[in-house]
Amino acid sequence: MTRLSEDELIATLFAPLAGPGGLGLRDDAAVITPKPGHDLVVSKDMLIAGVHFFAADPPDAIARKALRVNLSDLAAKGATPVGFLLGLALPTDWTSEWLKDFARGLGVDARDFGCPLLGGDTVRTPGPLTLSVTVFGMAPSGRMVPRTGAGPGDLLYVSGTIGDAAIGLRLRRQDRLDTPWIAVLGEAAAAYLRDRYLLPRPRLGLRAALQAHASAAMDVSDGLAGDLGKMLALAGLTADISVDGVPLSEAARAALKLSPDLIETVLAGGDDYEILCAVPPMNAKAFEVSAKNAGIAVTRIGTSHPGEGAPRFTDPNGAALALAVRSFAHF
Amino acid sequence: MTRLSEDELIATLFAPLAGPGGLGLRDDAAVITPKPGHDLVVSKDMLIAGVHFFAADPPDAIARKALRVNLSDLAAKGATPVGFLLGLALPTDWTSEWLKDFARGLGVDARDFGCPLLGGDTVRTPGPLTLSVTVFGMAPSGRMVPRTGAGPGDLLYVSGTIGDAAIGLRLRRQDRLDTPWIAVLGEAAAAYLRDRYLLPRPRLGLRAALQAHASAAMDVSDGLAGDLGKMLALAGLTADISVDGVPLSEAARAALKLSPDLIETVLAGGDDYEILCAVPPMNAKAFEVSAKNAGIAVTRIGTSHPGEGAPRFTDPNGAALALAVRSFAHF
Repeated sequence: MTRLSEDELIATLFAPLAGPGGLGLRDDAAVITPKPGHDLVVSKDMLIAGVHFFAADPPDAIARKALRVNLSDLAAKGATPVGFLLGLALPTDWTSEWLKDFARGLGVDARDFGCPLLGGDTVRTPGPLTLSVTVFGMAPSGRMVPRTGAGPGDLLYVSGTIGDAAIGLRLRRQDRLDTPWIAVLGEAAAAYLRDRYLLPRPRLGLRAALQAHASAAMDVSDGLAGDLGKMLALAGLTADISVDGVPLSEAARAALKLSPDLIETVLAGGDDYEILCAVPPMNAKAFEVSAKNAGIAVTRIGTSHPGEGAPRFTDPNGAALALAVRSFAHF
Repeated sequence: MTRLSEDELIATLFAPLAGPGGLGLRDDAAVITPKPGHDLVVSKDMLIAGVHFFAADPPDAIARKALRVNLSDLAAKGATPVGFLLGLALPTDWTSEWLKDFARGLGVDARDFGCPLLGGDTVRTPGPLTLSVTVFGMAPSGRMVPRTGAGPGDLLYVSGTIGDAAIGLRLRRQDRLDTPWIAVLGEAAAAYLRDRYLLPRPRLGLRAALQAHASAAMDVSDGLAGDLGKMLALAGLTADISVDGVPLSEAARAALKLSPDLIETVLAGGDDYEILCAVPPMNAKAFEVSAKNAGIAVTRIGTSHPGEGAPRFTDPNGAALALAVRSFAHF
């Protein structure tokens, strides 16, 4: 396959993904008309090869991750996807085959999440593949779930399981010969964890529950310990979290059993793309029912209380864990 | 100055630029509420050091260019700026001083153009400095000026002058000792042309005239010849353009006199960020009056007519110019 020109690749690979308002990707701009009584919620995440994903990852997975980490932001805000813009800086060695697979993956998720492509920009870079997605969502006017709204005594919940992607990243990075627990873990668990790193699961199904019942929410992208600290600090709050209560997958449990030190990776490793939220006690039952109806597991991990300083994570004996690092720094 | 952490640089440098809806840059998302009866117009342009600007350009100019090329898209669509998101991928050698100057320049233009920062993402890159701006504007519902709407017989206008930035880029790139015309041009003209490359002038003042009177518009970013061809081809049109009628600055005229071959750079070099539009003949007078009232020069360069193929550019003898390249490829 010879290389496509910019106009050709837009016309053949990306225009088929365009939704209403994307104007067939023939304009420099797109038009968005929020439904009456709704605000537009916008978010933007950049992803760089070698920083946020591996350049050798399958192109369709790279595309899907770029869209999904942005959809995860919308999910945390209780917003319904409307569409997205894609900024794509291609390195010098791109091929049309690679880009075809990339566009195919992007199209699958754009369709499955009801989030069509509306426009963007394609440029070349002497550096690594760089993706910049801006995602648009809608929320009833004034009802976007903020990061700042937690109150004292609110119950703290996370969706799904924590730490899988961070362990998965270590599995990708570390040689199994040098890392005894990797060799023992078994391929099924390892594959599960690696896949959780490769492909986040944006918890859009939680948005109704969040919108109706949560006082504050964010997605966990940089590690539970750091992200919880950020959310609570904005409200002058902190919390005590029993590590035993943090929901783990079977695969993560197996890895932790082999290597208890992984607890720091679990709590501070990032890339979870689960929802962290605060729910006033009077809403707790309704929140849990609504999440269950949506088919998304949520686990109460603690209660907020007034105070300064980072949340304490305690072991089963009540001793505080000394976390050297609380967040994975993509920066 | 020691390096700031991501949270510190957001809090100290960027949060002061945040507008309403930006939530103090303390959330992953921003909220935009278009005025009733208005659509949101969105556009995104990526800029890469070494491709779209020089890494050694002043940081405040880099910031302003990144915002201005996006504002230029809004201007062409007849849209009023609302705010923007900034994706900033910093190379390994960034300094806090650099970033402070960058934020200062960004703040000046955000204020002057009424386009506050609403959010974004800051990451590190092993590659060159990469900027991704998503800009939001408002236009009365259904009234965004499209690229596709030109009709046969429409008059074709450009704002300002064409070719300055492209000559300015050559001045930046070429050694004056190897390029006789550069040595003769004189510093005042050279400085003018270089500045036009460094700092685009988004023609937002034209937006009322465009919205009321133009059938189609786009900004000239990749060269007049190629961009005019794109706009007309979308409507099954073409045009004959007399090169003598293309508006040039005095500095560009002086350079062309010294080196007539520069005409190709003028017509196909790009980075003009002027408005190209089609205006039905019955609207022409009103368009010209409205532009004049806005203080923005517009020049009629030709008339569209049905036909295939790229627009012909003719010299004073009526002979067609053979343009080897019609667009500057940022890709």
